[in-house]
Amino acid sequence: MVQINMESNLLGANELLARRNRSAFAEQRLLVINLMSSPGSGKTTILERSIEFLAGRLQMGVIEGDLYTDQDAQRIEKKGVQVIQINTEGACHLDAGMVGKAFEQLPSAAVEMIFIENVGNLVCPAEFDLGEDFRAVVISTTEGNDKLSKYPLIFHQARVILLNKIDLLPFTDFSLDKFKEDLAQINPSATVFLVSGRTGEGIDIWIEWLLEEVKKKRP
Amino acid sequence: MVQINMESNLLGANELLARRNRSAFAEQRLLVINLMSSPGSGKTTILERSIEFLAGRLQMGVIEGDLYTDQDAQRIEKKGVQVIQINTEGACHLDAGMVGKAFEQLPSAAVEMIFIENVGNLVCPAEFDLGEDFRAVVISTTEGNDKLSKYPLIFHQARVILLNKIDLLPFTDFSLDKFKEDLAQINPSATVFLVSGRTGEGIDIWIEWLLEEVKKKRP
Repeated sequence: MVQINMESNLLGANELLARRNRSAFAEQRLLVINLMSSPGSGKTTILERSIEFLAGRLQMGVIEGDLYTDQDAQRIEKKGVQVIQINTEGACHLDAGMVGKAFEQLPSAAVEMIFIENVGNLVCPAEFDLGEDFRAVVISTTEGNDKLSKYPLIFHQARVILLNKIDLLPFTDFSLDKFKEDLAQINPSATVFLVSGRTGEGIDIWIEWLLEEVKKKRP
Repeated sequence: MVQINMESNLLGANELLARRNRSAFAEQRLLVINLMSSPGSGKTTILERSIEFLAGRLQMGVIEGDLYTDQDAQRIEKKGVQVIQINTEGACHLDAGMVGKAFEQLPSAAVEMIFIENVGNLVCPAEFDLGEDFRAVVISTTEGNDKLSKYPLIFHQARVILLNKIDLLPFTDFSLDKFKEDLAQINPSATVFLVSGRTGEGIDIWIEWLLEEVKKKRP
């Protein structure tokens, strides 16, 4: 009897394509960030703010993942950066193949950094390497303290964690101390930024850190 | 060449098991609700509040879906109701088979209503019928106005939509008018409740409506 494990085959194919993406990104010395979160945590708002802070300092491109709409891509385009839209047509995550095709359409010679905004989902996107340099996960103060331990994989793999909606902290039961304690268990080496996409608080610090990362690629 | 469409086979098997669940629930005249939302929208907090309001008026059971932990089940158990935990071990949604097995373990002769708390995810759970009477989807004011149009399937299928964190509305850019406009497009027949799991606001109205639904099963 021949047994075919569909999942490991699918992941295997994704790994190959992710490796191909990673080579293509490296060839152009691009910093590529896979931005992930739950729906409504504020990925797009943080991107909008980041673009404002980076204006005139860095050329960037955005690959936007969404189920059906191009609402986020439209928001990003208004900020004056190159955007390629991926519609997954119901699929719950981006994969390396989708990103590879989008990358081919991006006039990448003109950019130094690419943000990939993944589908809003804390489960499925964590399992798919897109060829990125690192993963940044957004979590917001209004989502409660239990998200780190309930969705450990995505937080464990993140190099950056952006704690968003810090402006709403006083109106919630979210505990910063508990957040730090849990993170020390799940991912002690993550770099954490406290931000508000809405007010812009903390975005400058995140952007300075990002610019240093770009410099490592283009000394 | 024989081509096997894995997805439609999987969904086909789920439909059979969902039908089996639906018969089993009907036999015991149970009202069964599939509660879904993004991570951190407040499903468990709404459940806790609902249990408080239902105390002494109705016997209920809860089937808790989570990736790995039993944190939500522990919170519900503290409120004095029967809970069965399902750990999906990484799977992004509950399916009818998991729910059927959990139901067998629930001392269901003693209950009149069952809440199934699905995995926090706006994409995958929408595709799996669990045999429920209806679906209730929680969305919170802090998640932004674009969720209805970005995740249309889950909102389209909902009979009830609980707009949660209504206490935080003044501190966000969320527009109630826009929410109503979008809902008129996506699901004009949905019953909407404005609630705060945290303060308890609006929970009484939702509970009175629920009790009427139970009465229809047990006149």
